[in-house]
Amino acid sequence: MTTGMNEIMIDLQGGAKAPLYQKIYDHLKKEITCGAISKGTRIPSTRLLAKQLMVSRSTVEMAYEQLLAEGYIKSEACRGFFVCDITELYQLEGKQNKSEGLNADFTSEPVWGKETAKKLPDCYADFSPDAIDTEHFPYNVWRKLNKDVWLDDREELLLSGEGQGDERLRNVIAQYLYQARGVNCHASQIILGAGNEYLEILLAQVLGTKKKILMEDPTYLQAYHTFCNLGFQVETILGSDKGIEIESVHEIQPDAIYIMPSHQFPLGTVMPQKARLELLNWANEKEGRYLIEDDHDSEFRYRGKPIPSLQSFDRNGKVIYLGTFSKSIAPSLRVSYMVLPLELLREYRRKCGFYSTTVPKMQQEVLRKFIEEGHFGRHLNRMRAIYKAKHDFITAELKKYKWVKRVSGDHAGLHVLIEVDTNLTEQELCEQARKAGIKINGISEYYIHKQEERCNPVILLGYGKLDNEKIKEGLKLLNEVVETAD
Amino acid sequence: MTTGMNEIMIDLQGGAKAPLYQKIYDHLKKEITCGAISKGTRIPSTRLLAKQLMVSRSTVEMAYEQLLAEGYIKSEACRGFFVCDITELYQLEGKQNKSEGLNADFTSEPVWGKETAKKLPDCYADFSPDAIDTEHFPYNVWRKLNKDVWLDDREELLLSGEGQGDERLRNVIAQYLYQARGVNCHASQIILGAGNEYLEILLAQVLGTKKKILMEDPTYLQAYHTFCNLGFQVETILGSDKGIEIESVHEIQPDAIYIMPSHQFPLGTVMPQKARLELLNWANEKEGRYLIEDDHDSEFRYRGKPIPSLQSFDRNGKVIYLGTFSKSIAPSLRVSYMVLPLELLREYRRKCGFYSTTVPKMQQEVLRKFIEEGHFGRHLNRMRAIYKAKHDFITAELKKYKWVKRVSGDHAGLHVLIEVDTNLTEQELCEQARKAGIKINGISEYYIHKQEERCNPVILLGYGKLDNEKIKEGLKLLNEVVETAD
Repeated sequence: MTTGMNEIMIDLQGGAKAPLYQKIYDHLKKEITCGAISKGTRIPSTRLLAKQLMVSRSTVEMAYEQLLAEGYIKSEACRGFFVCDITELYQLEGKQNKSEGLNADFTSEPVWGKETAKKLPDCYADFSPDAIDTEHFPYNVWRKLNKDVWLDDREELLLSGEGQGDERLRNVIAQYLYQARGVNCHASQIILGAGNEYLEILLAQVLGTKKKILMEDPTYLQAYHTFCNLGFQVETILGSDKGIEIESVHEIQPDAIYIMPSHQFPLGTVMPQKARLELLNWANEKEGRYLIEDDHDSEFRYRGKPIPSLQSFDRNGKVIYLGTFSKSIAPSLRVSYMVLPLELLREYRRKCGFYSTTVPKMQQEVLRKFIEEGHFGRHLNRMRAIYKAKHDFITAELKKYKWVKRVSGDHAGLHVLIEVDTNLTEQELCEQARKAGIKINGISEYYIHKQEERCNPVILLGYGKLDNEKIKEGLKLLNEVVETAD
Repeated sequence: MTTGMNEIMIDLQGGAKAPLYQKIYDHLKKEITCGAISKGTRIPSTRLLAKQLMVSRSTVEMAYEQLLAEGYIKSEACRGFFVCDITELYQLEGKQNKSEGLNADFTSEPVWGKETAKKLPDCYADFSPDAIDTEHFPYNVWRKLNKDVWLDDREELLLSGEGQGDERLRNVIAQYLYQARGVNCHASQIILGAGNEYLEILLAQVLGTKKKILMEDPTYLQAYHTFCNLGFQVETILGSDKGIEIESVHEIQPDAIYIMPSHQFPLGTVMPQKARLELLNWANEKEGRYLIEDDHDSEFRYRGKPIPSLQSFDRNGKVIYLGTFSKSIAPSLRVSYMVLPLELLREYRRKCGFYSTTVPKMQQEVLRKFIEEGHFGRHLNRMRAIYKAKHDFITAELKKYKWVKRVSGDHAGLHVLIEVDTNLTEQELCEQARKAGIKINGISEYYIHKQEERCNPVILLGYGKLDNEKIKEGLKLLNEVVETAD
């Protein structure tokens, strides 16, 4: 039996000077701690509390996130937030009274903003660029393969197997990469790992963490933070449709350059052949220089010839190739792959050869069968058609609105970029859109170094997860936000 | 159709000065490259070739390992080694002619020795300490849970979910840890990861990689190499049954100490309560000091009361607790867990909160059901009885042999240590045992700093994987080795 409460009175004006979310957090924590709000009680939704307190919803969300993280409340799907049993929690908190320590999370940069955002409750249309279509997942095939794998009592399913991942799986991946992306490699050069970040962690150990790495800005911030965490010196260069200009590379003198030549994230640009060759030449000029090619979503290209990977042009073992099944199959799979040039492979074996694989054996088996039996090829073709239809639909819909000043980064991947003609700032636009029930991300969120305010906001519209109805209605809601503001 | 060959002539005397394995490797590579030994040919077993060339089997194995790693040959279970199709391999090898580079692997310390050893062919009895019993794995239960998880087309199975691992799974693990090990923690403090090494990599980022860490020697070398790879300064102290002496700690002044108080690997010692309290006091004396408790195989204890975890005595958030399902369920699962004190949890969220979990969602679901539905508890009790029977059997068998001078590290885990009264060195004993068809590891393999030759070899005898017949016959074979030598 649970009790609910619909109103919480919090004095946000009085008391010490502190951010609003902290006051909300402090108040709720105190009430829970002293038993005023008891275990099992449902507390108001973030929407409701924000309305009552007349603060923005994200303010309440931040307070709730922290309470969630510390175990004071828990979230139940479709039901809301409930107060936890804190008796056990309590005896652990000897240090929690030091309020400086307690608020450390808030004052620092919330690099994991997107992670926590995932937990947000109700939202009509989620335009996140990393959301995939889950409706057309081949559940039946997957179910059957799972069953097949466990058909016999096979001991090998219980042993972790080869450190780089099973050879048979690496073989089919090598074949796939050659056919689909022109990647030249032998299975022995492939290392499987539980996600790109894990492989980047291995790569950092292989290259040595004292190196200087160059990245485009904006970029995948996860890769950026991973490299920083491991001690790399990261230099950045503003991303453009010209790719990386070689003059800047000569100036910065990095040891390695992280790029997404086939489809830059989040800009959606394709690196021109000239820039590719210049980068390869630069790498060839000196020993120890490498290009890290993250080929994250190259499976989905809707116009023109497939763009071969940079690795396919590499004759001197200068390109480290990274790819993932997160978008082509499912993020939950946690399987990525890294192709190492032979020289680095030797270094990998020397420094990292002792690591067991991070991919469970049973998962490897199901994935191998999925590729080997032709399901993966069929799935890719099917999903490409589905995503293309969504892509064509959203670009057609966007033409209806005069505030859509420019659409870019299209013809590939799972999102488009649009420049919005409005008086709102990017942040205001995203916030108000969220209040209206649609989740959009501004391009600024993907910059390592915050840029000066632009004239017009640029936002990412991911369509992977949405059907036509949601795309259409979502854009209508966005239209209302823009029209109301101007 | 495959052809086989039973003899290979290699001139090991002539030519340039080089280690034997390199000559074998060079010869075979040349023959394969020029087509003299064609694709699909079965080459002699390591045993046979070693006999023909009158070299030790491990010499041939090293050459084969490298050919395997580079894709010249492949190994097929129960069939032997076969020459690969190297046409594709070929175009990649622009740099392979630099023979210095090529042999880099050989000249350096082979830290992954144990990994490659796994691939070794036929061996009558494998006494590896990390081998588990796979015969009594509850395949049917696991099969059913797998089926249950995939019963419905659930979207959530496709999404990677929470970064620390799913809350529901962390809840059942928290409950298990409290009941079984006295660990005081809330689910929000638990981080799931694909193996201990991955969690140690995260921990290094949380603590900051410039720290000084103290480890016992001998120890889990994987943990040692992980810490080294990430830039930690690692200091060591000789392991003893007294645990770590506090005077040495004061002298070395580490930031963190990595210990296995319940059952030290490989020594099998239990840290006395006095040493535990001294370490906790040491950690309490100053901010930023931590104890890393690796509770790797505490599930299996056969005599006396279960020893509570060090974490259960910690009142000030000083113990980082590490555990794994590799031994209690299966290594292939790739699920370990780390319990962080609240202060470090905040640091984790700040620095590592952006990482997605490395454990696949479907795997988390199966594991959760396995624990939640009581299968895990039953499995542990069953396996404890099975391992205890094996433990009792091997210790009884060992009493038959007069060269068994001392048995130690028993009453827990999956191996015992024995001191062997023989004129053979430890290495000779292990090598000759291997030639006789049994795989044993000497204690020296687990030392970070190689120790001076002891009077008597000390070896580890893992019994996890072996049935009574194999234990008995394996020890008989070992007896022959010792008797023949003396």
